[in-house]
Amino acid sequence: MKISVIVGHPYTGSLNAGIAQEVTDKLKENGHDVMYHDLYQEGFNSVIPAAELVSDHSDDKLVLLHQQEIREADGIIIIHPNWWGQPPAILKGWVDRVLRENVAYTFPPGDNGGGLPIGLLKAKTALVINTSNTPKEREEQVFGDPLERIWKDCIFDFCGIKIFDRLMLRVVADSTPGERIAWLNQVTELVNSYFPEE
Amino acid sequence: MKISVIVGHPYTGSLNAGIAQEVTDKLKENGHDVMYHDLYQEGFNSVIPAAELVSDHSDDKLVLLHQQEIREADGIIIIHPNWWGQPPAILKGWVDRVLRENVAYTFPPGDNGGGLPIGLLKAKTALVINTSNTPKEREEQVFGDPLERIWKDCIFDFCGIKIFDRLMLRVVADSTPGERIAWLNQVTELVNSYFPEE
Repeated sequence: MKISVIVGHPYTGSLNAGIAQEVTDKLKENGHDVMYHDLYQEGFNSVIPAAELVSDHSDDKLVLLHQQEIREADGIIIIHPNWWGQPPAILKGWVDRVLRENVAYTFPPGDNGGGLPIGLLKAKTALVINTSNTPKEREEQVFGDPLERIWKDCIFDFCGIKIFDRLMLRVVADSTPGERIAWLNQVTELVNSYFPEE
Repeated sequence: MKISVIVGHPYTGSLNAGIAQEVTDKLKENGHDVMYHDLYQEGFNSVIPAAELVSDHSDDKLVLLHQQEIREADGIIIIHPNWWGQPPAILKGWVDRVLRENVAYTFPPGDNGGGLPIGLLKAKTALVINTSNTPKEREEQVFGDPLERIWKDCIFDFCGIKIFDRLMLRVVADSTPGERIAWLNQVTELVNSYFPEE
C-alpha cells in the first residue's frame, strides 16, 4: 500500500524524529511504499494565502505534490507533539492548505458550504502518534484532550476516513531511556497492526 | 485598560475584518488603549524555529513586540474563523511563538516541564470571537466544539486568565445582510459587557 507519513516537529534529534524513523522502517519492512514528509525539513509554508483560499488553487509546487500524494494514499500516519492541545502551526498549515475542497472533501451540488460534506480521500485508515508532557488524567479532565476530536472527527471523518487510531506517548519530559524504547515498541505494534506485511 | 486584539484571517473584506473593526471602534469609544494586530496583514511568521523552541529566545522583532504587549495587556480579544475545529495556522503560530515559557506561564522551581504550570499573564479577561460554517448542533454533537476547550482551558486558563467568554457566529456561508448586522451587534454587546466605558 501507499502510505503518507507526515511529521511536524522542529528537532531532527527529537523523539518525534525517532518515531518517524521507526514508522518508515517498519512500513518498508512490511512491503509498503512510503511517501515521507518532514514539514520542517522541507520548509513547508504553513500560511494559506488569500488568493489560494478563495480560488481553491495553489501555485506552491510543494502544496500541489502534497495534494497529489494525499489523494493517492491508501493510509496516512501523522506524527507531532501536543502543543496547546493542537498540532504545531506548520502541521495545522498542512491541513489548511493540503486538505482543500475537491481534494479531500466536497459538498453536494447546490450546497454553498454550509451543509454535509462528502469525504474524497481514498485512504481507509489514519493513525496519529503524539508526544506530550501532560499526564493522561490531567489531559482528559483539565484539557478535554482536544487532539482526539480534532484528528478523528473534525479532520479524518470529514474527509471520509473511518478507521482511526491514536497513540499518545507521555510524559516525555520525565521519560527514561527504557520508557522511550517501550514507546518505540508501541509504535511498531501500531504500524504492524494496521499496515501488516503485504 | 490596555486591550490586545489579535486577528487571524486572510481577507481584508471578510466578516472577521468587520468584527475586528467593530471591536476596536467600540474599545476606543469606551476609552481603552487598543494594541491591534492583523497577523496576515503584518506578515507574522507562524513557524517557530528549532533554535527558538529550545532557547525560549526569539530574534524576531515582531514576536518580541507581541510578547511585550501580551505581558502588558489587561484584556485579550482573539478573532478568527473556525478551520477544522482550530484556528488558522497563522494564529496557531502566534500561540506557539508568543505565549512562551516565562512570558505567559512558568513552572515551579525544580520542575522539568511535566508538572503544573503557573500562569503569568496579568490580563484578567480573554474573549474569543469565531465565525463558522457549521450549525451549532452539528458542531457540538459531531465535532465536540474543540475551540472551546482549546482557548478556555488549554491556552488561557493555563496562562492564568480565569474570565473567558466566546462568541461563535454561524452559519456564515448561509447568512443574510441582516444576520451579519445582528452579529456585529452581538460583538458590540460582548465588548461593552467585559470592557465597558472607563
